[in-house]
Amino acid sequence: MSRSSDAPQSRQRILESLHLLLAQDFQPGDRLPSVRELTARFQASPVTVSAALAQLVREGLIVTHPGRGTFVAEPAMPGPVRDLGWQTVALSESLSLPGEMQAMLRPALSGVIPFGSGYGDESLYPLDLLHRAAANAARRPGVWARLPPEGLEPLRTWFAQQLGHEHRLDDVLIAPGGQAALSTALRALVPPGAPLLVESPTYYGVLAAARLLGARLIPVPTDDRGVRPDLLRAAFQASGGKVLYLQPLYANPTGAVLAPERREAVIRAAEEAGAFIIEDDYARDLCLQGTPLAPLAALAPERVVYLRSITKSTAPGLRVAAIAALGPVRTRLRNARAVEDFFLSGPVQETALQVLTSPAWPRHLQQLRASLRERRDVMRSALAREVPHLQVTGLPTGGFNLWVRLPGDADDLTFVAEAARLGVQVSAGRNAFPAESDGSYVRMSYAACPPQLIEEGVARLKAMPGHGR
Amino acid sequence: MSRSSDAPQSRQRILESLHLLLAQDFQPGDRLPSVRELTARFQASPVTVSAALAQLVREGLIVTHPGRGTFVAEPAMPGPVRDLGWQTVALSESLSLPGEMQAMLRPALSGVIPFGSGYGDESLYPLDLLHRAAANAARRPGVWARLPPEGLEPLRTWFAQQLGHEHRLDDVLIAPGGQAALSTALRALVPPGAPLLVESPTYYGVLAAARLLGARLIPVPTDDRGVRPDLLRAAFQASGGKVLYLQPLYANPTGAVLAPERREAVIRAAEEAGAFIIEDDYARDLCLQGTPLAPLAALAPERVVYLRSITKSTAPGLRVAAIAALGPVRTRLRNARAVEDFFLSGPVQETALQVLTSPAWPRHLQQLRASLRERRDVMRSALAREVPHLQVTGLPTGGFNLWVRLPGDADDLTFVAEAARLGVQVSAGRNAFPAESDGSYVRMSYAACPPQLIEEGVARLKAMPGHGR
Repeated sequence: MSRSSDAPQSRQRILESLHLLLAQDFQPGDRLPSVRELTARFQASPVTVSAALAQLVREGLIVTHPGRGTFVAEPAMPGPVRDLGWQTVALSESLSLPGEMQAMLRPALSGVIPFGSGYGDESLYPLDLLHRAAANAARRPGVWARLPPEGLEPLRTWFAQQLGHEHRLDDVLIAPGGQAALSTALRALVPPGAPLLVESPTYYGVLAAARLLGARLIPVPTDDRGVRPDLLRAAFQASGGKVLYLQPLYANPTGAVLAPERREAVIRAAEEAGAFIIEDDYARDLCLQGTPLAPLAALAPERVVYLRSITKSTAPGLRVAAIAALGPVRTRLRNARAVEDFFLSGPVQETALQVLTSPAWPRHLQQLRASLRERRDVMRSALAREVPHLQVTGLPTGGFNLWVRLPGDADDLTFVAEAARLGVQVSAGRNAFPAESDGSYVRMSYAACPPQLIEEGVARLKAMPGHGR
Repeated sequence: MSRSSDAPQSRQRILESLHLLLAQDFQPGDRLPSVRELTARFQASPVTVSAALAQLVREGLIVTHPGRGTFVAEPAMPGPVRDLGWQTVALSESLSLPGEMQAMLRPALSGVIPFGSGYGDESLYPLDLLHRAAANAARRPGVWARLPPEGLEPLRTWFAQQLGHEHRLDDVLIAPGGQAALSTALRALVPPGAPLLVESPTYYGVLAAARLLGARLIPVPTDDRGVRPDLLRAAFQASGGKVLYLQPLYANPTGAVLAPERREAVIRAAEEAGAFIIEDDYARDLCLQGTPLAPLAALAPERVVYLRSITKSTAPGLRVAAIAALGPVRTRLRNARAVEDFFLSGPVQETALQVLTSPAWPRHLQQLRASLRERRDVMRSALAREVPHLQVTGLPTGGFNLWVRLPGDADDLTFVAEAARLGVQVSAGRNAFPAESDGSYVRMSYAACPPQLIEEGVARLKAMPGHGR
């Protein structure tokens, strides 16, 4: 963020700062400071500042009068007053997202330390590899043509081979990212109003998708060894549910791994209920210690609809995931995907294939894991040292997050708001619960910040009222 | 297709031919002809043939014994016999696609003349422009990072500007292609079991998506001037429907344009019903004569959920479309899109932006239109000359298709099967009807073949039994 660097996010940062400035300190018709003044103020290059100003002109927020300067635009002529009430009648009841979830889908503001992010920062992306792969991919013969809805064959083969010998090319579908794979699986398996068993707490993306779908969420408690098989059986019996959603490996947000001795019991519970398990294996590449356990899909291939994303270990922009399943459900999933968007862009699939089969890929994974391990350890030490009353619930062996229990009767939303005031973004624990929780939590990601920024973020939390002991 | 050229589709063609050969003429353990023999047989280069063989090895269909040759693989050891009956119970009733629609989603076999395609052939793609744009896009700062769920701002601005002055950046969402935009709109607006008014005939993609969603299809008759407003009012009243899906410009499959004198009446009918119009403006770039009429969204911006794809005028692999809407429905659509797949790959959006804002874009559109116009005229003349008993229902002024009425009591599926036997792929008209039709039709696309191949395809149809007059 130095004056000369013009980091990739720099223009975005200036833009956001200018938006804030316009909203807070200026009136329509006011003259803006000169580019030189803004350059000094924002510690950015004149090129970056000018580009940001040009963007504001395009947005209609400012106007430039050559020779006179740049001015805050008068508000646009009010459009015709429209009566939109009929839309509310036509739309009827909303299955929309709670505001907190909407907030979680937006990037953090600049200057804010993003412990609330669901992705790593750009320093973790294999950018060289992505650039090369994307440039090659765009020139591959036939890559811009129509592809089969199931996806590119060698890419499907790669995912099948990762799963072991029970799955083949035919059992794999390609989807545009893990959330899309999850949406497809839920739509194909859970009719509106039907029960969906989920861990509690669990990944907020499944809760959001299930709620929009009108599914009935059935929470099943978890502990540090994953979902509890005894209560899972009870939940299947009580609800009559035919689908269980699980993250057996480094579950989001807790980091828990479904323990080896529980795996058989979980599969048997699903078997007894005649139910599917949707296994969301989003973090297989994010193993920080030892070797990850095999997926449930390898143990019970016909029982499990398996989802695997590569976005977390490459870059958010490489939106590629696989759905693997055997039997009639495979056909249902394939039709759901085909109708959803016909097929996935060829250059994107080819880029993913080239990245995953590159000799540089294992090296990247190794570096990624080392960086994440360091960040995790830095965050945990800093929390223990600076804010020891916040209780980290176990050291995760994979994934992106620490799951932090707040002391006493602290409220997670209050904590999130106070942290935001101090320039730290964290996620409210309640977003991860399908029902009431047994206490207050926040999720803190160590993935989106280099170690120094993690230290700074944790240090900022010391100033929190009521927590500054 | 000459021996030396190795056209982009060449390897795919060889692969398909080899698949066919293995299935029809060989037994497990049989020795395959040598690369030299296959090279002569398929009129392809040894490199292409070897690559295709390598692919078959990867697929487990053939095995190579160095020094001895290449052999058809023994079938894999049979896996454990799995009882998958429980899946059928868990999955319950299917909302799956009819087999014909599944067939329409697959690429045509090689050697078959693809009058059934929904896309142009590769000679119509702006490949140079795509290569340059994709290579640049992949290197843009921040392009691999997380983007807002609504899409890239300048790309949204481009779509808003195309619509005129009623829509702004904020009113536009980016989706991964026209079918994805349509799926989102239907999911957001039509609860399962609710009525959806559609033209009859209409685009098979909306019928497929609506059926998977469990919507109740309400057909509204069309003629050569588009949907009939009198019957539209009656359909709104009888069904209580709150959503009408329309393709006012070059409707698929008929090519009809909603006539200027009907536009007000259609909007008024929706107004009286308190209903939304989903305007699928898929073919705006495919105008073959004159200037296209303004979208309904420009006439009634708060009434219309507007969908615009760029895939048909760029390449199938550039899966980018926009959804534009004002008012509360915009929020509902935004949430539905965000939960569906979080956001669209940055490099794909950036590629689209660079293509659409390139100085070469208008030139490409001009060439594309000229090519399509020529192909349309060639197909129409050839049909009139060679198979005059097939009645083309009007000359479309845009789009990809001729809509052809079969004589007397001919059956469209029989026609499709007979054409396939002669090496011509056409689409059965029944796929376009939400209910019974007034006769038998086939859809014949002139977009996927150069003029010479169109002539050949039509000539082949002369040999059809019962039609060879």
